[in-house]
Amino acid sequence: MKKIGVVLSGCGVYDGSEIHEAVLVLLAIDRQGCEAVCLAPAGGFAVTNHLTGQQVAEQRDVLVEAARIARGKIRDIKEVKAAGLDAIVFPGGFGAAKNLSDFAVKGSTASVNVEVVRLLKEMAAAGKPIGAVCIAPVLLAAVLGKQYSPTVTIGNDAATAAEIEKCGAKHQECPVTEIVVDRKNKIVTSPAYMLGTRISEVADGIDKCVKEVINLI
Amino acid sequence: MKKIGVVLSGCGVYDGSEIHEAVLVLLAIDRQGCEAVCLAPAGGFAVTNHLTGQQVAEQRDVLVEAARIARGKIRDIKEVKAAGLDAIVFPGGFGAAKNLSDFAVKGSTASVNVEVVRLLKEMAAAGKPIGAVCIAPVLLAAVLGKQYSPTVTIGNDAATAAEIEKCGAKHQECPVTEIVVDRKNKIVTSPAYMLGTRISEVADGIDKCVKEVINLI
Repeated sequence: MKKIGVVLSGCGVYDGSEIHEAVLVLLAIDRQGCEAVCLAPAGGFAVTNHLTGQQVAEQRDVLVEAARIARGKIRDIKEVKAAGLDAIVFPGGFGAAKNLSDFAVKGSTASVNVEVVRLLKEMAAAGKPIGAVCIAPVLLAAVLGKQYSPTVTIGNDAATAAEIEKCGAKHQECPVTEIVVDRKNKIVTSPAYMLGTRISEVADGIDKCVKEVINLI
Repeated sequence: MKKIGVVLSGCGVYDGSEIHEAVLVLLAIDRQGCEAVCLAPAGGFAVTNHLTGQQVAEQRDVLVEAARIARGKIRDIKEVKAAGLDAIVFPGGFGAAKNLSDFAVKGSTASVNVEVVRLLKEMAAAGKPIGAVCIAPVLLAAVLGKQYSPTVTIGNDAATAAEIEKCGAKHQECPVTEIVVDRKNKIVTSPAYMLGTRISEVADGIDKCVKEVINLI
């Protein structure tokens, strides 16, 4: 059974992984007969109250909170190498831009979590497919942009697209139910909630993204 | 557009709403062209670390954490009456048995959150459909068992089924991808992760459950 890494960044759209996107990625992987291997880095993050939208004076741990989405079945990303995976997918949510990187603050000059950098570079060097949805394609731009010039989408947000291009990646506009496929680099992206207003349209794009990632293995 | 209440109990299988089930309920509602209205009661609950499975010395708020699944679009259940909904669905997770009630500790003698009791009784009195998956059917047994004797399923767990029958409800065994429909009471239930080992089979049961709930409106 093919193993697809799913890199989580917490549990909640405003301070972690976007929950719908993460669950829809897990569903699409299972429906393709593959095994999802949930991964996240350990480390603190600032909590946002999702009822008020306000950041609060509390820290939680990325790996511990991501375990909620994974029903406890999750590994610390530092223990996992590309050799143990056939492909990898990044759901979105602000966690990708705040916990896995500081893209939300620094844009194209963002630093990315050292273990995410390592695993992404290992996957790319091994020619293994990489998927990312919503804001998570910025991680691929930040880590792989200069070496591989991948083509990705985050929908049609001009400011984010400009930061992606400053990283050396190319941005291509895309509707929520569709995907952008960079065949040369085996990178597949979809806008998800960067554009989506309905969970069903987000599901359509994520389903296509995961199918194409698995197809490229 | 028909409005379907979705009653959440936090965010995470061990101390709140089972996240996959909740998202799959929201997806099924949207795919049927209906509007999900997320609801939860305010109030503290004891946190379980989902990485270790251990309860920790921390309290969080049910409504605030449930807002993560709802992407912030959630209402306090006390503000919502049956008159504003066409149907209601309860995802599972230990939150249904620990936060919305104390069924996990007290079984058939459980107390149920006063606002959940009120809304369930209003829905039943108005002849509006009620769906519940995983462990959440125990709420229907505890609140509606004596008056309506509803038939429900939580899969095939004999001990839980016995507690359900002590409430005055009837338990019917059911596989994870199927549903039990009590047409007289307009109550639809499915085992979800009480039996499921794969998210895709849980999704199949939940999809059928939500479709039938909407069909019964």
